Amino acid sequence: MQRGEVRSDIAWATPSKVVIHGLDLCEDIVGKLDFGQMAFLQIFARLPKDPNELQMFNAMMVILVEHGITPSSLATRMTYCGAPEAVQAAVAAGLLGLGSVFVGSLDNAARMLQEAIPDKANPGDVAMLAQEIVTSFRSRKEIIPGVGHPFHKPLDPRTGALFRVAKQTGYYGPYAELMTEIGAEAERQTKRVLPVNVTAAMAAVASQMGIPWQVCRGLAVAARAVGLVGHVIEEMRRPMADELYLRIEHEASEHLVSKG
Amino acid sequence: MQRGEVRSDIAWATPSKVVIHGLDLCEDIVGKLDFGQMAFLQIFARLPKDPNELQMFNAMMVILVEHGITPSSLATRMTYCGAPEAVQAAVAAGLLGLGSVFVGSLDNAARMLQEAIPDKANPGDVAMLAQEIVTSFRSRKEIIPGVGHPFHKPLDPRTGALFRVAKQTGYYGPYAELMTEIGAEAERQTKRVLPVNVTAAMAAVASQMGIPWQVCRGLAVAARAVGLVGHVIEEMRRPMADELYLRIEHEASEHLVSKG
Amino acid sequence: MQRGEVRSDIAWATPSKVVIHGLDLCEDIVGKLDFGQMAFLQIFARLPKDPNELQMFNAMMVILVEHGITPSSLATRMTYCGAPEAVQAAVAAGLLGLGSVFVGSLDNAARMLQEAIPDKANPGDVAMLAQEIVTSFRSRKEIIPGVGHPFHKPLDPRTGALFRVAKQTGYYGPYAELMTEIGAEAERQTKRVLPVNVTAAMAAVASQMGIPWQVCRGLAVAARAVGLVGHVIEEMRRPMADELYLRIEHEASEHLVSKG
Amino acid sequence: MQRGEVRSDIAWATPSKVVIHGLDLCEDIVGKLDFGQMAFLQIFARLPKDPNELQMFNAMMVILVEHGITPSSLATRMTYCGAPEAVQAAVAAGLLGLGSVFVGSLDNAARMLQEAIPDKANPGDVAMLAQEIVTSFRSRKEIIPGVGHPFHKPLDPRTGALFRVAKQTGYYGPYAELMTEIGAEAERQTKRVLPVNVTAAMAAVASQMGIPWQVCRGLAVAARAVGLVGHVIEEMRRPMADELYLRIEHEASEHLVSKG
Repeated sequence: MQRGEVRSDIAWATPSKVVIHGLDLCEDIVGKLDFGQMAFLQIFARLPKDPNELQMFNAMMVILVEHGITPSSLATRMTYCGAPEAVQAAVAAGLLGLGSVFVGSLDNAARMLQEAIPDKANPGDVAMLAQEIVTSFRSRKEIIPGVGHPFHKPLDPRTGALFRVAKQTGYYGPYAELMTEIGAEAERQTKRVLPVNVTAAMAAVASQMGIPWQVCRGLAVAARAVGLVGHVIEEMRRPMADELYLRIEHEASEHLVSKG
Repeated sequence: MQRGEVRSDIAWATPSKVVIHGLDLCEDIVGKLDFGQMAFLQIFARLPKDPNELQMFNAMMVILVEHGITPSSLATRMTYCGAPEAVQAAVAAGLLGLGSVFVGSLDNAARMLQEAIPDKANPGDVAMLAQEIVTSFRSRKEIIPGVGHPFHKPLDPRTGALFRVAKQTGYYGPYAELMTEIGAEAERQTKRVLPVNVTAAMAAVASQMGIPWQVCRGLAVAARAVGLVGHVIEEMRRPMADELYLRIEHEASEHLVSKG
Repeated sequence: MQRGEVRSDIAWATPSKVVIHGLDLCEDIVGKLDFGQMAFLQIFARLPKDPNELQMFNAMMVILVEHGITPSSLATRMTYCGAPEAVQAAVAAGLLGLGSVFVGSLDNAARMLQEAIPDKANPGDVAMLAQEIVTSFRSRKEIIPGVGHPFHKPLDPRTGALFRVAKQTGYYGPYAELMTEIGAEAERQTKRVLPVNVTAAMAAVASQMGIPWQVCRGLAVAARAVGLVGHVIEEMRRPMADELYLRIEHEASEHLVSKG
Repeated sequence: MQRGEVRSDIAWATPSKVVIHGLDLCEDIVGKLDFGQMAFLQIFARLPKDPNELQMFNAMMVILVEHGITPSSLATRMTYCGAPEAVQAAVAAGLLGLGSVFVGSLDNAARMLQEAIPDKANPGDVAMLAQEIVTSFRSRKEIIPGVGHPFHKPLDPRTGALFRVAKQTGYYGPYAELMTEIGAEAERQTKRVLPVNVTAAMAAVASQMGIPWQVCRGLAVAARAVGLVGHVIEEMRRPMADELYLRIEHEASEHLVSKG
């Protein structure tokens, strides 16, 4: 068997020292970096280059933490109810639902933007790009990622909030412009209300920050893990899973019991 | 069936607004709070009361993010290798091993400390408490949580780093003192090198911050989720899982193949 | 670093052959063994010694497959709703809740029985053992594993069914007798209705089959994985997760929206 | 909010009775059905129509149970090493890697076959279909699912074993013929050794049994859950995870430690 290389550049340690991405954990990180800086370091393998880059990153992360009662937070609560000794499993169960339906549009929107503008220094004519993209998705009868929201309409307020920070920090650029054009063009072509939603706004900002689309879902997963811990804590104090599953069991099998 | 209450106080939304723990996501959170503040808000259901509290919390979170190649990060990498389209599953797989062996000592140490000092304003004689605790664990032949480390000895450098921040921010108190005494007493009674390890330091600090021991594992899970995303990203760029499993498969079944 | 042994005795392969627990997959297993025999082989590392042993094992496995709408099957359905492309993650999410609350009583009951009767050839006086066990659990104010059920009372019908098979196949022995006595003694001492429940019946049978208590949860996990696939398939065809989470979201946050 | 229906047809219960897919658990299932029949019942919502159908199903299930040391079984072992108290989490972690790389080819092959032959009573000219399919995949530079294997070549012995059972039981039909033709055509067009592999054989058989391609991954997940329990049991008795992660940690970070 040919022997390949097994190598990680993330961390190393001696008995008296731990080094992470080149920084000494005890000297340079603990007490010096906050959780946002540490998350940035772990994801980009470097510190933020300036306060603007950190602020933009923080804005993306905080917007993802908490989405209320969702299938994901319910999976966490249901799991906690059966295995309260394994908080890690409850959080993991909630993460497992962050797939194509809820978080996938983030990756898909980022991919669409990054494939349309491979080099952000030369974006080309974004209005024309938007027209081509919308026409192409519609001709293939595919959903355009990042436009439309079942609840937040006619505008998704989070898009405005994130783009405001992007303008302040210098990360509002061709990707955000293209995304905005895509939303407008989609509304024109379909004659439906299709706001640029929060995942699209994040995709635009992440693209402007140079984050490859393949990595975007990872950001969402990290942020939601924090959010799901909050749901575990609330479920500890004010449980709902037990009540819910008994109700649902009753309702779902009633038609069978009554036929008996 | 009696109908119980199903209620969450975490978040609510209207089409134009999202509110999390009483703060307007778009007005008060995005662009205003960093990821550490948001994690604090989600876990404590309130903002930090002063910069010291936030700094102490950040120090605890950053120390947990990255532990190098561990069973947990290997589970993440192995899962990514089979299901690269499901980054959420790779992170979840890594979280699942944060159980009794690696993270459990955090909960156990926090529980030991909080049961010994129910009221931090009246800690009593910590030296005497430490003696009772060590004697009691040893008489039951149980492992004392939070003392000893297979690699970081004679001292765990992370304990010193975390306690330094605790002293600066006012969170070095009776729990840290008790933990330190427990370590010293355990070394006296066993005549072995038993440093107060990082999980014990975190348990002491978390107890001083008023975090119930049941919640401690959740902090570790949230921080490690961030760390595991870093491993997914590295595995994308410089994979090791494929090489490893082929090697291990070969080595583990060699004795059977050769008998044929 | 000292180099330990890495060895697995489960399987090996050449390009033209796969061998599992000593049997040739293509010659001896496919078309020859059924799924129950294969599960037995994988768990015991040998084939059943006679039809009775296989029938007893099958009875244990089938009783565990399906429990209707439970927190576990709801976690599966919620996860499928978010990540329909990752059926493996939906099943995994459901398994994660098989912890101390629902399946733990199986391990705990098996442990209680196996510690009380270390050698089934010399069970001693089971009535006296039962009295000691019940008294001891009650004096420690601990729940006696395997007795009582919130819904299946005054008798759990599954206990009778499993014990009938145990009698037919020769696996009704001292462990089942002890478990039955424990139930009766618990009812006497507490004056409450405390049927021997299905997990206790399984614990008794598994103990009689020589299955260590540590392995019992594994049997439950394997059987429930099959059951959860059934829930995924139903959720594909007749979804409930979407409807449920919207309802729950509405109900849980109503008090906040109305104060808004 | 419009109220949708929440309904499950799988199971219902009264205090003295449990009914699963219309069969009384205590009267008709326990002691009557084996684990293979129960898995069939749970997946198809009916009993096998004859012994052939059951034998074919069993053959598919047993072939999937155990694949030796794989990324999936290593994720299980790594998770067990960190959380031995949570066997369910160890099995779940192993399932999570059953994604596009290892099990996805099963779904993809089944989809390819079912889309090519929507009605198995009218398969058309399978040789021509095979030519079209191979040409079409190659023109799109996509991998043809189900042909080729890195280790089992020039033939995958499991394909022959499964197709033998299919011939005996009457499930060798147009899907198996088409799959065989696709393999031969792919070898002709590419001039490479491309055996029809086991996932393709399963896809063909499952299609002939009328199993929709969307459900195929579920079968694999159920069978592998049984297999992973076997790995947990071996890891309990003869652990390898600890040794492995220490070795890998050492090798992966050596280049950083030496630079210091």
